[in-house]
Amino acid sequence: MGGRGLRVNHGRGLPGWTISAEAPARYDVVVVEDVFDPANTALADTSAAAYPVTSRRFVVVDANVDRLHGRRIRAYLDHHGITDDPMVLPVAEERKTMATVAAVADAVGAFGIDRHQPIIAIGGGVLLDVVGVVASLYRRGTPYIRVPTTLVGLVDAGVGAKTGVNHGDHKNLFGAYHPPVAALLDRTLLATLDERHLVNGLAEVLKIALVRDAELFELIARDGAELVRDRFRTGGAEVLDRAVDGMLCELADNLWEHRLDRLVDFGHSISPVLEMKALPELLHGEAVAVDMALFTVVAARRGLLEPADRDRILDVLRATGLPVSHELLGPALLREGLAATTRHRGGRQRLPLPTGIGSAVFCDDVTEGELAVAAKELGELR
Amino acid sequence: MGGRGLRVNHGRGLPGWTISAEAPARYDVVVVEDVFDPANTALADTSAAAYPVTSRRFVVVDANVDRLHGRRIRAYLDHHGITDDPMVLPVAEERKTMATVAAVADAVGAFGIDRHQPIIAIGGGVLLDVVGVVASLYRRGTPYIRVPTTLVGLVDAGVGAKTGVNHGDHKNLFGAYHPPVAALLDRTLLATLDERHLVNGLAEVLKIALVRDAELFELIARDGAELVRDRFRTGGAEVLDRAVDGMLCELADNLWEHRLDRLVDFGHSISPVLEMKALPELLHGEAVAVDMALFTVVAARRGLLEPADRDRILDVLRATGLPVSHELLGPALLREGLAATTRHRGGRQRLPLPTGIGSAVFCDDVTEGELAVAAKELGELR
Repeated sequence: MGGRGLRVNHGRGLPGWTISAEAPARYDVVVVEDVFDPANTALADTSAAAYPVTSRRFVVVDANVDRLHGRRIRAYLDHHGITDDPMVLPVAEERKTMATVAAVADAVGAFGIDRHQPIIAIGGGVLLDVVGVVASLYRRGTPYIRVPTTLVGLVDAGVGAKTGVNHGDHKNLFGAYHPPVAALLDRTLLATLDERHLVNGLAEVLKIALVRDAELFELIARDGAELVRDRFRTGGAEVLDRAVDGMLCELADNLWEHRLDRLVDFGHSISPVLEMKALPELLHGEAVAVDMALFTVVAARRGLLEPADRDRILDVLRATGLPVSHELLGPALLREGLAATTRHRGGRQRLPLPTGIGSAVFCDDVTEGELAVAAKELGELR
Repeated sequence: MGGRGLRVNHGRGLPGWTISAEAPARYDVVVVEDVFDPANTALADTSAAAYPVTSRRFVVVDANVDRLHGRRIRAYLDHHGITDDPMVLPVAEERKTMATVAAVADAVGAFGIDRHQPIIAIGGGVLLDVVGVVASLYRRGTPYIRVPTTLVGLVDAGVGAKTGVNHGDHKNLFGAYHPPVAALLDRTLLATLDERHLVNGLAEVLKIALVRDAELFELIARDGAELVRDRFRTGGAEVLDRAVDGMLCELADNLWEHRLDRLVDFGHSISPVLEMKALPELLHGEAVAVDMALFTVVAARRGLLEPADRDRILDVLRATGLPVSHELLGPALLREGLAATTRHRGGRQRLPLPTGIGSAVFCDDVTEGELAVAAKELGELR
């Protein structure tokens, strides 16, 4: 918050000023249970703490969530004086656009909120990303509270600082680093999530496991199927805790990505292009799984990873129900994906390659040919 | 940049994490002369320092500026290998929208830039605001360089951290705090600016003068007409220097507006609503002048400001060629303007009221009736 605007000499006789300041950010990630039980005051309290003037809030609910939990959510919001009319937003990766941002913003404008009056976003990753962009832009930054309702939301989109929408073929080309004031994580919401979306979220859990937490990997290897069947009721708490803790440890000292060597980019190198090209076929985590499998093979081919570890990783991905290959994974897509990720990572590839289960290094010299050979090998292994 | 992701107990037995970090920001404001002289390397050097990999840049030029200076600008950009095809953007307050942001973003996407490759924006306040929004969103924040070409750009829109576009009737409802890597201030560009736009910029200079710099006020009172006639060639350097220094001193320790008591909001209380309602009649600085005149009368009626100072302020505004009243300044607009600004300032009015020439205080208790009486008095004084 502090800053200095100082007269300086910019050299070669050019007078002027240099302004230097720091913006603080601080947010809470809170584990709650049964967040829409009217007796549970976590959401109402978080909202009141952010802006004590009124309890009235602009609330956006994912249309899927509204169908499943709408009655309970409305009863909760009404009981706590938050709103009697949440905005219900139909979401899908194809609708994650600036047009949807504009529609939500229009609704916020019509509702009328003060500068510090937090928006409440209830939904999966796409909804959280879209509402996050609105919050980042509205009055140049409005607070918001995230209530993720999917596994991807709970372990990934819900807990970091990023917001984003797609643009043309480019995934998350627009967005901001705009952390929420709080994210409330309630795994009981997973009870109504379908199996495919749970497995989709497990891809992000496996990503964290593979780059930094071998024990978490073993938990998924052992209990993955049961976790999905049981909707994380039993044993889910520990997996979620480890996944979120790992994610936050990776993010916390690099919230604005001033460092572009990011372990959590594992699985996110060529998958953004794959996911967009394959729309609506692949879910985010499914594209991430294919990307993880590809670079696992690359790492093994380079001798960075033991063949046994490579096979174990691919086996667990498959056993979890995730894809490890895709017909679009040809030379053209690999070239485009590598170019896009290099551009996004400041001119270097910075590709995380696993060196074992729970560890990885960065490489800058992977060739398109190497990727094509690995993709072919992966297709044959399938 | 540093951050900590720490396990905490959020009370009432709720486990979780608190993430706390600081984002550093640093930018240069540089006074240059004849920035598009091919021998002047300031722009090329600034651009190269920001991203040494290539000199190729995405450049956006205000269509008005392109008409007046296009040949010189293109020769400069070509000579320094920056681009051979700048984007020419028609601008006007009515086009300061998310649709224009999307159009510029499409063009950036088609051009293809790396994450750290700065965009160069050459134009007036509207263009700088629009390109700033694009830069803030593109890859969640891309660097950009501002070359303001108008007086408003040189003393206001060009030197701060804000970007913004209008939405519906709301001025700058969307945007970001996204400072450029550098702003290059070249007052020789004012040579081709028409008188009305110069006077428009003087309103922002007078704003800074009135809240913190009595000497600057006296300079404008004495030389205003000559400065306009002479297009800031003679004597313009000192006025610009004082105006920019004053502005930066106000902004530097409050770059993200965590404090909402801002002296530089003087003239910007009911003017956002006035400007939008009067579009396209009033320029930004003209609406700001009406707002300054109104609150000058309010301050005098409250006994905060001597009648002689009130008259002096109104006389200098008029002598500069600025409007001090407007037919739309009726009870409905005043009510709406006061409500909008209160909402924007976190639930309090925080209205800067002058207590003399070069000083002001904040008030939270101005009534609509008081504003209506002051507006009537102002209309009669006219």
